[in-house]
Order: sequence, then structure tokens, then C-alpha cells
Amino acid sequence: MTPKKDLASECSIARTLDVIGDRWSLLILRDGFYGVRRFEDFQHDLGVARNVLADRLAKLVERGVFERRLYAERPPRYEYRLTAKGRDLMPVLLTMMRWGDDWEGDDARPPVKLVHVGCGHATHAVLDCAHCGERLNLANVYVDPIRITPRPRREEATAS
Amino acid sequence: MTPKKDLASECSIARTLDVIGDRWSLLILRDGFYGVRRFEDFQHDLGVARNVLADRLAKLVERGVFERRLYAERPPRYEYRLTAKGRDLMPVLLTMMRWGDDWEGDDARPPVKLVHVGCGHATHAVLDCAHCGERLNLANVYVDPIRITPRPRREEATAS
Repeated sequence: MTPKKDLASECSIARTLDVIGDRWSLLILRDGFYGVRRFEDFQHDLGVARNVLADRLAKLVERGVFERRLYAERPPRYEYRLTAKGRDLMPVLLTMMRWGDDWEGDDARPPVKLVHVGCGHATHAVLDCAHCGERLNLANVYVDPIRITPRPRREEATAS
Repeated sequence: MTPKKDLASECSIARTLDVIGDRWSLLILRDGFYGVRRFEDFQHDLGVARNVLADRLAKLVERGVFERRLYAERPPRYEYRLTAKGRDLMPVLLTMMRWGDDWEGDDARPPVKLVHVGCGHATHAVLDCAHCGERLNLANVYVDPIRITPRPRREEATAS
């Protein structure tokens, strides 16, 4: 099945990737959630080339994910803070974290421990329907007008 | 605050990005969820250079996100199918879709319509605690031992 011709440009995923669709931008974003704010600290943590970091930060500021703020005047120093738009990317990072734990972890590198303060337990994020609260999975959602993953799980269980 | 030195290499997000941390891989993945399976169809939909597509597909197969299957013998033809590991990336794409709808949409390009078959409503995915079911947000989770977004929302409300 080939999707509609104009799928790529209309897709919200593609729009998101226009903003954060590269490894460095996503790592900068992750560091932002961990409280990193200053150019030197991003650079130190990521080990990224300074010109690449400057380029990515400028783009993330331009797209409204971070804001650049003066925090010292002599000499002028700036820090980068996540905006509301940037903080709203937390779900993307939490779902990536979960997948990395599940599929790319090993015994030598135990999963990151995500703690929910509300119940006090180490946890992970699950995706539920905003309307009814039921757990979402591949079998019970579709993107109108395109059906996601047309291959039923049964067929796969037989094939593998 | 600078995170621990070894944060980058230990982080599950970084591990995930090693596999899908580029725009083309994520768009290929999205197309996989939409049912695209054949090289020509990926190429047609994405408009990506054939050598880039071949490179990304090979890597995604190598990392176990897609599997390459013979579907015709004369001449030999292969298709690319999402594995269980690949399908487990649905939450990453759904959260990206949601963010794109919320922050990068416009009136001319209405949001993608995600439908939950269970309740029959157009919906979006929300992130809940796997342990207690409560909604997760920046204020009520932390990554041990690193506090996410140390800046409280109050402070920001005052500053902006």
C-alpha cells in the first residue's frame, strides 16, 4: 500500500522532525530536561563540535524550543532555557527512553530509573487514550484515513 | 547544573538515537507504520535519494527494527517489515505526531486524526504512570539520580 502522495508534507511527524529530527538536537533537548542551560555545559556533556552546537541551538531557539536569555552582563553571557513548547517534548523523550531501556539496554548498563513522585514508584510511561483512558496499542488505533500497520499480529506470530 | 560525565553514553535516549536518530530513519519508520513495505514505495513517498534510503534501510534491518523478506523469486524482490522491536516505536511516533499537531500545525494543515477504535473517538495519546495510572508531567517525574527540569514552573511564570 502506498500512502497518499501528500502524506509526507502534511504529516505532523514530519513537521516535528523539521524541528528536532537530528541526533544532536534531541540530545541537546535531553540535556535541557536535565537542567543544562549553558553553552559550555552542553558542549562539555555532549562532546559535540562547537560550531555544530551553536548551529543546533540557534535553530532550536529560532523554532521556539529554547529561549536564549542573558544571565550575566560583563561579559554578556547567555543561557538556553526550554520554553513551554520545548517542555512539551517530554513525552517524545520519555518514550525514547523507554524503548532504549527495553530494546537497547544490557546488563552492564541498567535502565534509567524514572520515578513517579505521585505514587513513589520507579515506573515508565504508558500511552493511554486521552478520551477514554484505555491503553493505546497498534491494534486499537488508526490514523484517518490511513490504517496503521495493516499486518495483524496473528499473521506475524505464524510467520516468525 | 552539569550532569554526570557518563550521562551521554549511559542514557537510554542516546541508545535509541543510535538506532533512529535521524530524520530519514524516522520517516522510514513512520511509513512502515503506514504499511509501506517496498523500497520503491518508500522512495516514492519520501523522495529520498536511493543510496540514502538503501543505507538507512540496511541499518534499520541490522538493528532489528525492520526485517527484510523475499516476497518474489523471479526476479528476487524484498520487502521491509516492522519487527516487534520496530513496532514498539509506535509511542515515539505518536508523541511526535501530537507535538507536531500542537505546535507546528496551522489552519491550512489540520492535525492528523488519530482514532481510538476502542471508544471510537478522535483522540491523542497521553502519558500515564505504568504503576498507578496517574498522568505524568514534568512536575511529577524525575530520572534518578538526575532531577528533570530543575526550574519550577512557578519561577518561570514569574520570569516570563
